[in-house]
This record gives sequence, C-alpha cells and structure tokens, in this order.
Amino acid sequence: MKMSSCLTGLLASSLLLGCSLTSTEIPTSERQVGEATAPKNIIFMIGDGMGANYLTAYRYYLATEPSAEVAATIFDELWLGISSTYPADNTFVTDSAASATALATGVKTFNGAIAVDQQHLPIGTMMQLAKRLGKANGIVASSQVNHATPAGFLAHNPSRRNYDAIADMYLDYRVDGQIVADVILGGGTEYFIREDRNLVAEFKANGYQYADNWQDLAQLTQKPALALLAEKGLPSALNNPEPRPLARLTEKALKLLAPNEQGFLLMVEGSQIDWCGHANDIACAMAEMADFAEAVAVAKHFVDQHPDTLLVITADHETGGLSIGADGIYAWLPQVIMQVQMTAAALAEELQALNSAAAFYQRWMELTAIELPEDVQASLFAARTLDRRAFRFALTEQINRASHTGWTTTGHTAADVPVLAYGKWQQDFAGFQDNTDIARQLMQYVLRYAGKNDDNIISTD
Amino acid sequence: MKMSSCLTGLLASSLLLGCSLTSTEIPTSERQVGEATAPKNIIFMIGDGMGANYLTAYRYYLATEPSAEVAATIFDELWLGISSTYPADNTFVTDSAASATALATGVKTFNGAIAVDQQHLPIGTMMQLAKRLGKANGIVASSQVNHATPAGFLAHNPSRRNYDAIADMYLDYRVDGQIVADVILGGGTEYFIREDRNLVAEFKANGYQYADNWQDLAQLTQKPALALLAEKGLPSALNNPEPRPLARLTEKALKLLAPNEQGFLLMVEGSQIDWCGHANDIACAMAEMADFAEAVAVAKHFVDQHPDTLLVITADHETGGLSIGADGIYAWLPQVIMQVQMTAAALAEELQALNSAAAFYQRWMELTAIELPEDVQASLFAARTLDRRAFRFALTEQINRASHTGWTTTGHTAADVPVLAYGKWQQDFAGFQDNTDIARQLMQYVLRYAGKNDDNIISTD
Repeated sequence: MKMSSCLTGLLASSLLLGCSLTSTEIPTSERQVGEATAPKNIIFMIGDGMGANYLTAYRYYLATEPSAEVAATIFDELWLGISSTYPADNTFVTDSAASATALATGVKTFNGAIAVDQQHLPIGTMMQLAKRLGKANGIVASSQVNHATPAGFLAHNPSRRNYDAIADMYLDYRVDGQIVADVILGGGTEYFIREDRNLVAEFKANGYQYADNWQDLAQLTQKPALALLAEKGLPSALNNPEPRPLARLTEKALKLLAPNEQGFLLMVEGSQIDWCGHANDIACAMAEMADFAEAVAVAKHFVDQHPDTLLVITADHETGGLSIGADGIYAWLPQVIMQVQMTAAALAEELQALNSAAAFYQRWMELTAIELPEDVQASLFAARTLDRRAFRFALTEQINRASHTGWTTTGHTAADVPVLAYGKWQQDFAGFQDNTDIARQLMQYVLRYAGKNDDNIISTD
Repeated sequence: MKMSSCLTGLLASSLLLGCSLTSTEIPTSERQVGEATAPKNIIFMIGDGMGANYLTAYRYYLATEPSAEVAATIFDELWLGISSTYPADNTFVTDSAASATALATGVKTFNGAIAVDQQHLPIGTMMQLAKRLGKANGIVASSQVNHATPAGFLAHNPSRRNYDAIADMYLDYRVDGQIVADVILGGGTEYFIREDRNLVAEFKANGYQYADNWQDLAQLTQKPALALLAEKGLPSALNNPEPRPLARLTEKALKLLAPNEQGFLLMVEGSQIDWCGHANDIACAMAEMADFAEAVAVAKHFVDQHPDTLLVITADHETGGLSIGADGIYAWLPQVIMQVQMTAAALAEELQALNSAAAFYQRWMELTAIELPEDVQASLFAARTLDRRAFRFALTEQINRASHTGWTTTGHTAADVPVLAYGKWQQDFAGFQDNTDIARQLMQYVLRYAGKNDDNIISTD
C-alpha cells in the first residue's frame, strides 16, 4: 500500500533540486493520448475531520420528519469509496499535517509534519508538480490559509505550528521561478501582515489582486489573487452573518482559475468541521457540513459545465469519535440541534457575562430551546465561573445529552474516511484505498495531462 | 428511497395468502435471459453491529508493527459501498429486528418487529420467496438461531422477544407446504427442546438430520439438517475452544446447500460482534471479527469455485459508537487488546471469585497484561462486589483506557454500515444505498433466476 521511498525521492528531487523531468517526456503524438486519459481540471475538496458519521448525521439532520422524509444528500450521491488515514508513526491516528502531507504528496509522514518526510526532508507536492506542468493552482480554506491542510500543498516544515514560516513559503518557495498558488482565499491576515514582514504587500508587488473583505472579494477579476477575510479562521459557519461562505469562495476561485489553458488544481478545505469536532459541538459541526455541502454543490455544477474536470472529495481524518445516538438510547434528535443558534464558544461568551441565574437560563432557552431540570440549570450557571473551555464543554454536554449525540475524544480517531468523486474519472476512487493512493492518482493525472510518462516518477505498486 | 407499501403488500400477500405468481411468469425462451442475469446462489453475510469502525479496527488489530505493516484485510478487498439503516419509526437508530426485517424483506418497520409491518401484518421474506421458487435456504448464526437477525428471514412476530413462537414458526410456517429453511446451524436448544414442545423431534420427523455437538455436525451429510450447538448462543469466539466456529458452520452449510439444482440462499450471521459492542468489550469484538473474517474467506472461496454465486456482506447497524482512539490521545494500541485472554464477562466470573487483592491483581495481569496503578487496582478489586454487569464495565473501562478505545453507548447508533460484495453482480452494491435496497436487489435476483418478471412484484422506484 505504500509508495516506495526512492521513487518518492525522485519526484521530490526533480522539483526541489531542479532535476529535469525531460527524460520522461514523450512525443507529442502520444501526448494527445495522455491528455485524453487525464482530466484537465481537478477540484480536490477536503472536509477536515469529516468522518463518515458526519455525512450520515448531516443526512438525518436534514430530515425534518425522520424516516418518512430521509433523502439522499449530495454526499450520498457522490459517495464511492473509503480511505485509511494512518500516519507513518506507530499510532494509527493521524493529525491534519501528516494527513495533508499524505493527500498532497502521496507519502506518509509523522504527525505535525508539513510535506517533509521522517528525516525532515521536503517532499514534492501535487501543486508544485501542477505549477511546473502549466496548471494554475488555487487554495480555498475557511481556516487561516496557512493552516495544516492547505500548508501541506504549498510548504515544507517539520512543524505545522510554524505559521509564519509556512506563510513565508507561500510566497518564497518557487517552482521554475513561479509562486506555486495563483489563487489563495481564506483567513489569516495575522500571519501575512506582520511586524517583521508584510507578505500581502509582497504578493501585491508580484501582481496579486488582494481583498480583505467580502465586498472587495467580489472585485477580484483575475488571477493571481489573494483574499484574507479574517485575522485567523473565518467566523464559524453557525455564527457567520455571511451566507454560504465556503461556497462563495469556491465560486470565486473557480471563476479565477477556469480560464487557464492547461487547466487547474483547486484544493478547497472545509476547515472548521474539525474545529467543531474538537469542541464536541454538534450544532457547529452540522452548520459547517451545510456550508461544505453548498461548496460541493458549486464544484459539482462546475463539473457539469466543464466535463473535463474531476471532483474528488474526502476527509483527512475523523474528529471527535462522533456517534449518532449515545448513552444507550435508540434515537438521535436532530430537531434539538437545529434549534441551537450559535456555537458553544459563542454561547459561552454570551452566557458567561450574565450574573443572574434567571437571566442566564432565559438566555440559554432563547439560544438553544433545550429545557433543563432545575439542578442542571444551577450547575450550568455555576459552571460559568470555570475557565472558558471547561464552561464550553459544560454547554455542549447539555446539547449532546438532549440530542443523544456521542463523542469519545476531543482529538482525532483512526476511522476510515469517505471518498466521493464526480466526473469522467470518478470510478478510480471507488472502494477501499489509502489516503496516499488518492494523492498518487491525482498526481498521475497531472503528469498524464501534460503528456508525461508517470511510470518513471510515481510508483503504482 | 422507500418501497411503496402497496407493492410490498402484493409480495406479502402472494406468499402469505396463497396468491398465485403465475400472472407474472414469462415464457421459457425468455427465462434463459433471466437466469443469465441473476446469480444461482446467494450468500448473504451479516455482521451484527459491525459498523465501519469495526472493519478499520480489525485492520489495525492485525498490524503487529503499525504503519509499516498495515495491510488490506479481506474486508477491505471486498468493500464496495455503504448503507443507511434507519428504521420506520422516528428514531434513526435501528434495532436488530427492524434491520433484519429491512434486510430480509426490503421493507422498513418498527424496532422489535420480526418481518411484520407497522400494522403488525406479515411481510414476505426473501427466504420464503426463494423456497417458493425452488431454491434451498440456509441459516447460520453464532447466536441462537431464532435470534432477531435470522428470525427476520424465517418468522413473523411483532416482538423479537417471543423466542418460542419464533422457533415454532421455523417449523410451522410453510410455503407451498414446505418448511422454509433447509439448513439451520447455530445455537438454541433451549428454545427448540422445551417442556411444551420438542421442535427437534418434529424437525427429525420431517426428515432433518440433527446434531447438537461439533462431532455430530461433521456427520451431517445432506439437507435438510438442523444443528443446535449450544443452549442459547455459541460461546464467545474469544472464549471458544473450538477454532473457526462460524467458518466451520459456513463450510458445512455450503456443502449441504450446494447440490440444490435451483441454487440456494444462505444467510450467515456473525451474531456476537454486536454482543461485544453492547458490552463495550474490544477484545471480544476483535475475536468475533476474526471469526467473521474466516467465514467470509470460506464464502469467498466458494464464489471462486462456483462463479454463479454472489456474496454480499453487510451489517444491520453499528453497536457501541466504537472509535479507534479516545480521550484526546492520538494513538490506538491494538497490542494491548491482543494480550487480553478472554471476554470481560469471563474475566468477571474468574476475578469475582478471588477474595485477596494480591491474587486478584495477579490473575488480572495473567489474563490481560495491563498494568494498573495501585489506586486503580484497589478500586477494581472493590468493584468485584458490584453486580456482574457493573463489574464487567469496570473491567472493560481499564481495557478501553489502556488501548485508547472509545465507546459512546451500550446500545446501537445510526452510523451507516459497510456493504461488501464479491461475484459477477457485485457492482450492484457499490456506493450509497439503503438497507432495503440490498434486500430488494437480492429478491430481484431470486425472481429473475426463476424467470419471473419482478417488475410486477417489487417496486424499483
């Protein structure tokens, strides 16, 4: 199941050390065959933390009258396979950096690593390959754009925590002299406009159009372009006054990338599904799923309009050990979740400010509609004096209990994740696969479309 | 996604009220086409409670040196789709009776119901249909053979708890005068040899060979045959001195059924995966998965030898909200689980008898190899005076904690379940489907093989 490391090294070296790929070029007459057997455009969507139970929960969340009205979601329609996600270290449970590396390079590495191997040596990514071979690249994320998942496609660093160094590399790391990403949309001004360096100014100096708000985003007319709409991540979808944020960023990225003659590679991350999972916040998670579903619909529509496009959707890992049903009760109550008006983090902020038990419970009822027995009311009111995190978990505990939602961890699990695909080559992603298989398949498409004989570069053992 | 009830009713009536199917018969010349487009033999394997995380956990359980040696399991190889499992009531979380009914009839019903609808009216099952159309039927289960899942294929009762009435129906309910199941292998003497009735004697009087132990099982030479190898369920696989129990029962059933000229329908249930899940006992669950995997290997081998056979494998629901990794820790430790020598139920029995703390901990170490801090040793020793169930959960808590295994419930969850298939028609089970879709597809094969025009009987909306 694993890619041989020497062949991986070959790919990495060819990109990083300037080795020529020309020995693997094939004549133009055969190039047509290559082009015909690979998609021109690739849209790779990653729901961070989106284990299979998130898709299932979202299906039932949408069913207002359970059972009678359960309908297949857009996820169900596109669903083809599953993927294992284990990292290279002996844990089975990956973090988002190791899995981003696997999904962006086809190589397993250790938790925390951004496109470097176990010796901390850089591993060439599919976006670097795409740039070298004439494609345009785009990154869309609802987190800061230099968070682990997008970073795996654009940077090399032994630690995902080195946010500034990773942001620097988005500009500084060049392939054949070119900046790797043509379109970067998400959050992260804090990392791009710093005391020591203003990357936004430097991107502008390199010809990038720039927006730092939704109004200006609409004015971005062509690539290259950079939009940073928040200091770090965008507001959580459940709290965000902007409708369809991820879908609108995806629409914009597709519009900017589509004209590129050699096609494009766009990575769209639903970043905060994972953050809701870490918080064990099911209302937060379902809102992120809804936002991600809207973005998937945008991408699917693009494929319908541009049939030379492949859409692949997966997750990097599962977060939270989410279960639909808990505590021995044979029921899940999405109608409870639907009435929760904001994330537990936002609830905590609202409620922690209230110093009367009556006002506290009244506001709780307005914001969640979950009735609590008097003793629970009292203990929740008392919990507001805890630190914010502990209070937040006291709040989610009530939402989870009332909706019969289960969680086993505030971290990740080793659950296999769903693989969805749509477009002419979708069947390549059916059945069981490893996360590295997905990356290797996509990199083969990039090579083949450019008329490269991939067999010498990527092992397919 | 749902079968229309009037058409369902049509199928039910045709079997139960003696309606003739002849109006839907098609000429012999076309029958050949029907036969060519449907498998002769169907092996339908159900891992009770076997959510996707059980398959994933089993993959990593087999990896003695994690990461480097992770290999695809037989489940990964055959894996094609997933299925929703929600029952007809407004809960999303099914029990084994409602899901057995869905898988045996293609109709959703309420929790607890054995092949009856929401008005308690009987629903015709695929085994009744198969019997009417000349196939031989077999049931293999590691539970008592009249437990919910097999019962869904052979009986009609508004409550799965009516074990005696269900056992009676295995003999009494006839299709065209014939007993429906030709081969019945599992546990359950307690329900078949009772003060009020001796069903074993009656089965014998109807020509059934009978065995009540593994030695006699080997002597069963032809159908019809009945083997009841335990009072209720077989011993848990982890405690069972018999090797490969489910695999050996599956081998025997296939041998007895294979000669039938019109083919056969065999349902094999890995019944106790679910029981381990209810007990939150991961060592128990992994042993059941190993036993089920052996049985799947037997069935797969049969398909290789008899290519006119279809093997479909799924689960009725997920049990326990199992997660691989828990408590915020990014690791799962199957090596801990592998050292546990028996189920928590058996451990509880052994340990509850010990009245010295030193002897207690020594035996714990012999049976689990899990070292405990002194305070935990003391509290576990104290817990032995609790009732057996509470003590059992105190024991599994230590195994789960040490291996970082998570559970959210002692009941079921609404997780989608895996669908695996092998054989010429395997692709019909790819992608997302509902549990009723699986049943309807299998029933269409039975009809088509017999040259029936199924469109008038089963809706395929």
